[in-house]
Amino acid sequence: MKNSQNITWHHSSVSKKERHVRNGHKSCVLWFTGLSGSGKSTLANAVDYALFQEGCRSYVLDGDNIRHGLNSDLSFRPADRKENIRRIGEVAKLFVDSGIIVSSAFISPFQGDRELVRQMFETGEFVEIFVKCPIEVCEIRDPKGLYKKARQGEISEFTGISSPYETPDTPEIVIESHHLTIAQSVELIKKYLKDKKIL
Amino acid sequence: MKNSQNITWHHSSVSKKERHVRNGHKSCVLWFTGLSGSGKSTLANAVDYALFQEGCRSYVLDGDNIRHGLNSDLSFRPADRKENIRRIGEVAKLFVDSGIIVSSAFISPFQGDRELVRQMFETGEFVEIFVKCPIEVCEIRDPKGLYKKARQGEISEFTGISSPYETPDTPEIVIESHHLTIAQSVELIKKYLKDKKIL
Repeated sequence: MKNSQNITWHHSSVSKKERHVRNGHKSCVLWFTGLSGSGKSTLANAVDYALFQEGCRSYVLDGDNIRHGLNSDLSFRPADRKENIRRIGEVAKLFVDSGIIVSSAFISPFQGDRELVRQMFETGEFVEIFVKCPIEVCEIRDPKGLYKKARQGEISEFTGISSPYETPDTPEIVIESHHLTIAQSVELIKKYLKDKKIL
Repeated sequence: MKNSQNITWHHSSVSKKERHVRNGHKSCVLWFTGLSGSGKSTLANAVDYALFQEGCRSYVLDGDNIRHGLNSDLSFRPADRKENIRRIGEVAKLFVDSGIIVSSAFISPFQGDRELVRQMFETGEFVEIFVKCPIEVCEIRDPKGLYKKARQGEISEFTGISSPYETPDTPEIVIESHHLTIAQSVELIKKYLKDKKIL
């Protein structure tokens, strides 16, 4: 018992600012929102790759690493979709706190849910990127065959078909993915990050 | 429409291995487990600080950033405690995938819950650190006054008082926090990481 009283266990921790200095850039979340097939995940990964090439610390949250992991207990019902977005927001916040530029790529169709996530962050840390693409184009792309299933009634509450997509009111960036190449889209996002002195 | 057909959107992403090369170290989770007051969070932050000083990329998950955020919807009932640990495991997995050495500091009293988390990871990525401290010492420290409340019956199912703590069977590291200084404890953990070629 004597020993324990001699030991002073100070609590020290690394601040977000110290992590920014170490990394040579600030951290933020790039919140990609848009219809299924609009190119969110592809673009998020392309941005992540470009940032990595420039020596930045970055990461992507998308269906591939969230749906079967953290949010595997959630369905596509309204309450669960809301919780899905809330958790992704909270995880993104942890990554931002760790100094990383994190990209999240989820349909996130409801303005209210996206606003709740925005409010978790400090000013300037939440960068909403609307990946704008006509549903007709998304439906032709249909990379996962989901539109076909939705039209056949095999999927209920499918965004754009049987459930609404609420267009962002004031997104920080709009990417018209049916008019731009990936390289052009990535450049637009990098320019934004440089203009805002995040990079 | 024509434009969209001309655009090839390749999917490229950065691998965990590429992130390891960039960071100059491998990633893993340092899973601190032990009684309330044993020093888990303090030690996790001290390790994080030491790793940061050495130029590593690291981060801490503890009550401060998880309880009021990602897991704010969970109570301390058994089913919720299990879900609490599952989510922390899944978030730790994302950090490990991003190339970071992540420390988690939660009581995590049940062997089964810890095993479930261990199984989420590849061999060698889950480093269980048992912060071993007699409950009598923890109760004297009582940094948050929780033992007092538990003894007075104000908190039910309190680990070590009215709910069991299952000692890890085969933890990778044991830290006797009532016998060691923080600096000594940090050195033991750093030595392990070097021996295992994580650093």
